[in-house]
Amino acid sequence: MPHLKIEYTANIDTQADMGTLCKALAGVLVALKDEQGQPVFPIGGTRVLAYPAPYHAVADGKQDYAFVYLNLRIAAGRNDAIKKVAGDALLARTKAHFESLFSTTLMGITVQIDEGVQVYDAKHSNLHPLFNK
Amino acid sequence: MPHLKIEYTANIDTQADMGTLCKALAGVLVALKDEQGQPVFPIGGTRVLAYPAPYHAVADGKQDYAFVYLNLRIAAGRNDAIKKVAGDALLARTKAHFESLFSTTLMGITVQIDEGVQVYDAKHSNLHPLFNK
Amino acid sequence: MPHLKIEYTANIDTQADMGTLCKALAGVLVALKDEQGQPVFPIGGTRVLAYPAPYHAVADGKQDYAFVYLNLRIAAGRNDAIKKVAGDALLARTKAHFESLFSTTLMGITVQIDEGVQVYDAKHSNLHPLFNK
Repeated sequence: MPHLKIEYTANIDTQADMGTLCKALAGVLVALKDEQGQPVFPIGGTRVLAYPAPYHAVADGKQDYAFVYLNLRIAAGRNDAIKKVAGDALLARTKAHFESLFSTTLMGITVQIDEGVQVYDAKHSNLHPLFNK
Repeated sequence: MPHLKIEYTANIDTQADMGTLCKALAGVLVALKDEQGQPVFPIGGTRVLAYPAPYHAVADGKQDYAFVYLNLRIAAGRNDAIKKVAGDALLARTKAHFESLFSTTLMGITVQIDEGVQVYDAKHSNLHPLFNK
Repeated sequence: MPHLKIEYTANIDTQADMGTLCKALAGVLVALKDEQGQPVFPIGGTRVLAYPAPYHAVADGKQDYAFVYLNLRIAAGRNDAIKKVAGDALLARTKAHFESLFSTTLMGITVQIDEGVQVYDAKHSNLHPLFNK
């Protein structure tokens, strides 16, 4: 972790440029620093996955509205201030990315952060060593 | 929110008519009223997203079983009765939608509601004003 | 439940053989026995769904890294030992499946188990009777 998942209506897929947004948001996450100047999240555990939903309905379903939902799952234990900084940074970057689309499209953007409460957590990775030099 | 996600095995995709179900379930959610006759959920925050899983295995995996899983994420704080009404309404509508398919297919349908326990929650939307007139 | 979802970067999709992994992991789940020799999970409620993310970024996003995230959602109430056995079995099978790919690809594999804390849970299934004979 952090595990950032973007779930969105596929009606904006051709305009959404989601590959670019994924890279930008990964950049946001790995750039975050805590009060001691240390990375908030492990770089090697950072991933952003975006999924267009081929079937969808938004609000009363009477128009072809769009929705983009970001859910960031993080390990428990960070302080509230840093979680707010992380959420605000994700929302700001996402708003900027969709600024033009938002001006012409009826759409909602929501960002939420969950602290994972998993009862089992294990990994196997050759990514962490790359970034823990 | 409410954020309703449908995760299902793609082996029923051609028969499932998921676009219709998404619209129907959005309709169920926005029509729900509380004891005071007010909408249970904000219309502009309602979204239904359905995702067929291209790879899947159900039960012992020995036959091509199907599964449809509905997860509704809502904000915390509503009373138990209203949550049961919401869940029952979603299940009833989904059962009705799949009545014919269910009679010829080995499949499971599950509906669950989670109260989101997010540590960060923010939005940017031009949908809410449409429905808060 | 159990509800096992695999979210992964689509850059490994042609090599990942996810259909095989789904079947193998369903097999792992249904084969698990508790201290009394009884199945840990109901067979008819077991499903494995794998979703390639068409858009993604991992770590610093500077290379085309891969990620495979397994999230198993189970009902609350089982003991810690059995949850560890389940998680370890899923991780071991997944590591074995990707052993060759892992040797040539920069990738992360994570397995987490969540105990569902749903406030509503209902089902409609013709699968359970098949396995409760």
